[in-house]
Amino acid sequence: MARRGLLLILSSPSGAGKSTLARRLMQWDPTIRFSVSATTRPPRPGEEHGVHYWFHHHASFRALVDQNGMLEHAEVFGNLYGSPRAPVERAMAEGRDTLFDVDWQGGQQIRNSPLGRDVVSVFILPPSIAELERRLRDRGQDSDAVISGRMAKSRDEISHWAEYDYVLVNDDLEATFVRLQAIVTAERLKRDRQPDLTGHVRGLNREFEAR
Amino acid sequence: MARRGLLLILSSPSGAGKSTLARRLMQWDPTIRFSVSATTRPPRPGEEHGVHYWFHHHASFRALVDQNGMLEHAEVFGNLYGSPRAPVERAMAEGRDTLFDVDWQGGQQIRNSPLGRDVVSVFILPPSIAELERRLRDRGQDSDAVISGRMAKSRDEISHWAEYDYVLVNDDLEATFVRLQAIVTAERLKRDRQPDLTGHVRGLNREFEAR
Repeated sequence: MARRGLLLILSSPSGAGKSTLARRLMQWDPTIRFSVSATTRPPRPGEEHGVHYWFHHHASFRALVDQNGMLEHAEVFGNLYGSPRAPVERAMAEGRDTLFDVDWQGGQQIRNSPLGRDVVSVFILPPSIAELERRLRDRGQDSDAVISGRMAKSRDEISHWAEYDYVLVNDDLEATFVRLQAIVTAERLKRDRQPDLTGHVRGLNREFEAR
Repeated sequence: MARRGLLLILSSPSGAGKSTLARRLMQWDPTIRFSVSATTRPPRPGEEHGVHYWFHHHASFRALVDQNGMLEHAEVFGNLYGSPRAPVERAMAEGRDTLFDVDWQGGQQIRNSPLGRDVVSVFILPPSIAELERRLRDRGQDSDAVISGRMAKSRDEISHWAEYDYVLVNDDLEATFVRLQAIVTAERLKRDRQPDLTGHVRGLNREFEAR
């Protein structure tokens, strides 16, 4: 019997290292499935349907929400974003963990969903705000105005750190990744996440009987 | 502010690798304190007071129990065994974890004590009973009668595996040790075990204010 897969929620302000950590986690264990978000925002150049996002028209997104097809969804800057439910439930049944890169609103909704008992949530904090801003500027993708907007959103995001099971301060990417690995490894070893143990102990008891 | 130390409970039938794992855990992190048991059984050659056991007369052991000085205690083959409370509370206050090598009865009592919220309990299962017996025989310390007694106690011990937070099947000592390290690492990263985070986030907010 496969264990139920975990729902790994990773949240952080942008620039705290979350995307890098998520990518490394999936390189470490390719059975971890990344939850590709659905969105009504139009694709940017190079973005692929089903890889970067599931691109939807407003009406089809709404229809999915109405059919209970989204584990969580929210409107951000006029666009809808959400996590489709069906692929998550398939992965769980196969004993595969799903990784969610969502903000605190998404985290709250998934935690409060019927799948909430399998949630493990991790919040990544930056060592300092100066460092957070430096990382955003070093990416060189964003204008000053966009960076200001991101910093305001960061403050809001950080205010929700205390809702998460685990908190990591990412002052060193390698050390933080090792900690994140430890969290995933440990959560999988919890007794109630190892359905095969019952059979193993039954086997041990049969051996005792046969002595 | 130091975090409160954890109470790490390690239980297993004898021969499952618990003592080796405990020793390796303390080599890995020398801040982990081993809870030396108190006992009324007479010292064997080479055993030192305060290292292998705290040796007590029956009356002084009983007096400690009456003064609530034992976190747990039990009678085994006519001798009393117990875990003194005071050194555990000192270690916890200093943010040091304490490692307990106790059986299921000790585990239950510590879990149900006022310090129970800081307990993390790990049960080590053998890959098979044949392997468990082989390891006991390979030690070459015990007569057939003693090994029979240990095997009967093992069966009783294994019947309590489902009371533990985490369960490890020790089919490979190195892999099992890495898993045990992950459990300790992860438990220390739980949000409510990191009192310093509140100050860290206050610092981040001051940085936001000053921008």
